[in-house]
Amino acid sequence: MSDEVEIPESHPRYHSLLTRHRIEAGVEKGITSQQGLIAQGRGEAFDYLLGEETISSADRAARAAAAALLRADQPVLSVNGNVAALVPDETIALAEAVDADIEVNLFNRTEERIERIVNHLRAHGAGEVKGLTADARIPGIDHERAKVDADGIYSADVVVVPLEDGDRAEALGEMDKTEIVIDLNPLSRSSQVASIPIIDNVVRAVPNITAHARELSTDSREELERIVDEFDVEEALTAAERVIRSSPPSE
Amino acid sequence: MSDEVEIPESHPRYHSLLTRHRIEAGVEKGITSQQGLIAQGRGEAFDYLLGEETISSADRAARAAAAALLRADQPVLSVNGNVAALVPDETIALAEAVDADIEVNLFNRTEERIERIVNHLRAHGAGEVKGLTADARIPGIDHERAKVDADGIYSADVVVVPLEDGDRAEALGEMDKTEIVIDLNPLSRSSQVASIPIIDNVVRAVPNITAHARELSTDSREELERIVDEFDVEEALTAAERVIRSSPPSE
Repeated sequence: MSDEVEIPESHPRYHSLLTRHRIEAGVEKGITSQQGLIAQGRGEAFDYLLGEETISSADRAARAAAAALLRADQPVLSVNGNVAALVPDETIALAEAVDADIEVNLFNRTEERIERIVNHLRAHGAGEVKGLTADARIPGIDHERAKVDADGIYSADVVVVPLEDGDRAEALGEMDKTEIVIDLNPLSRSSQVASIPIIDNVVRAVPNITAHARELSTDSREELERIVDEFDVEEALTAAERVIRSSPPSE
Repeated sequence: MSDEVEIPESHPRYHSLLTRHRIEAGVEKGITSQQGLIAQGRGEAFDYLLGEETISSADRAARAAAAALLRADQPVLSVNGNVAALVPDETIALAEAVDADIEVNLFNRTEERIERIVNHLRAHGAGEVKGLTADARIPGIDHERAKVDADGIYSADVVVVPLEDGDRAEALGEMDKTEIVIDLNPLSRSSQVASIPIIDNVVRAVPNITAHARELSTDSREELERIVDEFDVEEALTAAERVIRSSPPSE
């Protein structure tokens, strides 16, 4: 990919450096916002405290998310500036694995930035990307924040919202959808209102959901239902908070 | 001030909103860098876990820092892009209270950005601001990162380095100076190598050092020495880590 950098995978901070590079490239391309950079820093701090690894409760959440996406009638993956910059290929691979739509959905929405992100995803091989129609509104939040596609996030039964704003995560949660949040802060409102909160770095979580989806792809609908039903939200949040609050740092 | 925003002080997130506003204004003025925005986010996460307040061990560290600055022969306050954006008036007030020089000292150094920061500080009422001469080098780090003024940070006996990079904090620490670090992460290398680490938000810590300096201004040199000597670095770092790891969140 043209926006990849040469970092040896053996480097102890490979993922951290690659992440930083992708975010900076995202700024250059006009797809990562100032708010996105600050959010990236907050994520780095929580990831540092998590040990920069996928903890077992996050892996169980990713498996439940994969099952929920596979049994969904209309799953949609929501993509903002940081997600597009950090995991474009990984998001497209997940959409293919679970047959989901991709919709660009920005907190600081401008038509121009949505178009840049749509073009960025297409350059990475995405087919249709929703988000430009914006002919429906999420109830309960102000007009600009509420815009979504009627045949996308608005009517989805399962949505994946990585790195989502708390207000919008809450409003989406009230729309009776299965809401899968990816967030490094188990105490954030987005994590707290999610049906399935995955407390992990989006760089690790998105490919992990895809891997689980491929493994579960031949399971029966009953088996998928069982995996989703057995997932314990409170246990996942508590386990992540316990690691952040008590584990030794990773370095 | 022209770069202030109207946020009622009674707002529950007054300091958090004011900080965010100042950082964004710093970007507009070309004094806050991309790295500065990411660093701001990391700080927000640690401050959230600290409870967004000055913990008692950080207050003791600020008092020790004030004593060290008052008994110093040549104290210097180092200012980078985020410090200039966040606490310009507060830095100038501290410099006046302890009779210290101010030196602009950037991790990603460009003459243009140094000049912008110098002008920003002068617009806020600063007198002489060092940093443009850059006629000395901190030993042990690469050339660009090492540049300082010979009659400023290089020859200072006490330096305040808020939000400093770990490599440079370590190299400064090896120069046999009293190094006062302000950092929200007690586990960062900067905090770990400091003579006096203040684990607090720079927005709270800088005016707090000034308040202590005013209170201690009539103390004898012996009394100031005693306050500095009694400060326990390990206890301060451990206390901050304990709060981050175990306290309930602030909201």
